[in-house]
Amino acid sequence: MRSKQTSYQRVAIGIDVGGTHIKSAVVNEKGALLHHASLPTQSHKSSELILKNILKSFTYHKKWAEKKKFHIMGVGLGIPGIVSLKGMVHRSPHFPAWIDYPIRDELAKKIAFPILVDNDANMAALGEGWKGAAQKSKHFVLLTLGTGIGGGIVINRKIFRGDSGFAGEIGHLILHKDGYACTCGGQGCLELYASAVGIQKVSPFEAKKLYKLALRGNKKAKKILDAMGENLGAGIASLVNVLDIETILIGGGLSGAWTMFMKGLHRGIRKHTYPTLVNRVKVQRAKLGNQAGVIGGARAILEEQT
Amino acid sequence: MRSKQTSYQRVAIGIDVGGTHIKSAVVNEKGALLHHASLPTQSHKSSELILKNILKSFTYHKKWAEKKKFHIMGVGLGIPGIVSLKGMVHRSPHFPAWIDYPIRDELAKKIAFPILVDNDANMAALGEGWKGAAQKSKHFVLLTLGTGIGGGIVINRKIFRGDSGFAGEIGHLILHKDGYACTCGGQGCLELYASAVGIQKVSPFEAKKLYKLALRGNKKAKKILDAMGENLGAGIASLVNVLDIETILIGGGLSGAWTMFMKGLHRGIRKHTYPTLVNRVKVQRAKLGNQAGVIGGARAILEEQT
Repeated sequence: MRSKQTSYQRVAIGIDVGGTHIKSAVVNEKGALLHHASLPTQSHKSSELILKNILKSFTYHKKWAEKKKFHIMGVGLGIPGIVSLKGMVHRSPHFPAWIDYPIRDELAKKIAFPILVDNDANMAALGEGWKGAAQKSKHFVLLTLGTGIGGGIVINRKIFRGDSGFAGEIGHLILHKDGYACTCGGQGCLELYASAVGIQKVSPFEAKKLYKLALRGNKKAKKILDAMGENLGAGIASLVNVLDIETILIGGGLSGAWTMFMKGLHRGIRKHTYPTLVNRVKVQRAKLGNQAGVIGGARAILEEQT
Repeated sequence: MRSKQTSYQRVAIGIDVGGTHIKSAVVNEKGALLHHASLPTQSHKSSELILKNILKSFTYHKKWAEKKKFHIMGVGLGIPGIVSLKGMVHRSPHFPAWIDYPIRDELAKKIAFPILVDNDANMAALGEGWKGAAQKSKHFVLLTLGTGIGGGIVINRKIFRGDSGFAGEIGHLILHKDGYACTCGGQGCLELYASAVGIQKVSPFEAKKLYKLALRGNKKAKKILDAMGENLGAGIASLVNVLDIETILIGGGLSGAWTMFMKGLHRGIRKHTYPTLVNRVKVQRAKLGNQAGVIGGARAILEEQT
């Protein structure tokens, strides 16, 4: 992707904090990724170190952008977990030390630009709506399949955050009310049946290994991924019945196994979606891959500031 | 409720088509119900007869309003079932003859005022948001408990209709993926476990009779209603986890049994709601009773026209 790099071009810095890497980029108003970087998150070491690496990413891009005489509009940061509208991380599966941690305020001590913090799936959804698979959709839902299931809900082209900023926990839709106990304290949540966590409940292998086995034709592995697909399809049906949002994007690490679960997924959707809606549902793979988060992070700033 | 009845006051006619009665009213811009009526629906006779009774209700109010020299802004009509944005009834449990029935166009042949048609739960939600229990809520969900479970979702003080106008089928959230077969073609839908239909699956008595037995202290009846409450609570939790909408109203005929199921309902919510959200959920009874639909119907017109 190329862009005119005239002086005073307006850009934003998107930062996507993942379990293993902090991805970051400078993105212009057209959505072109001008400069990017990736640092290990090192979350197992300390939360100060994560913060340090976030700041390092920021400084690296800031210097570059200033040299180019770009005008930096701000920093948009995506974090996995429950993030409030005020930039507070309430809880995060990857960073258990961050409980009610005011990450925006902490960063603001060192960063003299506007900072927006949101859930990583929300940022990825913003990216997909802007430059990815949902550019034409007024409403859509992005499901991120990985260890668990995250989600971003876009209504009228805006992230829908709900009353306190926590909307989108699609992994915690109920699929089996009396099913497995969930780490959230609930029971029978969708992600226990349709994510890597779910795969580990029914398979001796990890999701990655299982996918490889399935690719090689292993029948049991194929069956497990197919069943996971059906469960996911049922969850999507449940969501569609309530919201009548017909564009569903699937992203996240596990979405790479798409070919192995999409048949089951469509079966689940057909079986559980309300008849008037069933033929309207369009499930697609997200398009921006692991760039969705940084592009969306930048977008959050650029749409706020313009 | 009183209102100044000056000349040229602007009013709308709200009509709520139920399974047994067509309720209708003239409502002014302040939400005051100035004139009302109720006619039997006679849906078992013919769909022409229903249409005739809708027109009869309209004419009755029109004459009255014209005599008062009120300015009629239009007619807002609530219908139980799947109603499109264009005023087409796709299917309706109470009126099985109406399949893809263009009710707005049919009425427009006889009514020379703007006509808005929507699902009855959406109209009731509009009413509750305007004059009822959700006046202070930016977002809320109204669940109507009756034979099945309907719903209206309000986002940013507007009915959220989704892509095709069908949003709100909360009765078809999945509660038990492999549970009972549903009339919708799906399986394990919430309404099979938490409405009159659900009660009939586990009780020899109808919902009304069961409620009376429970009031008289019958242990089995109390247990059934309590379990229904827990199921409903789990469904609400599922919804809240995804949408982070924290104000939930319960209306509809079965909501009269509130005292018998609310303990179970709160138990279901506590058990299944995401920890960050659980203490934020506020479940309340709808306030306008069976006037919600006509007040909301009028509101749909008045907010459109002003």
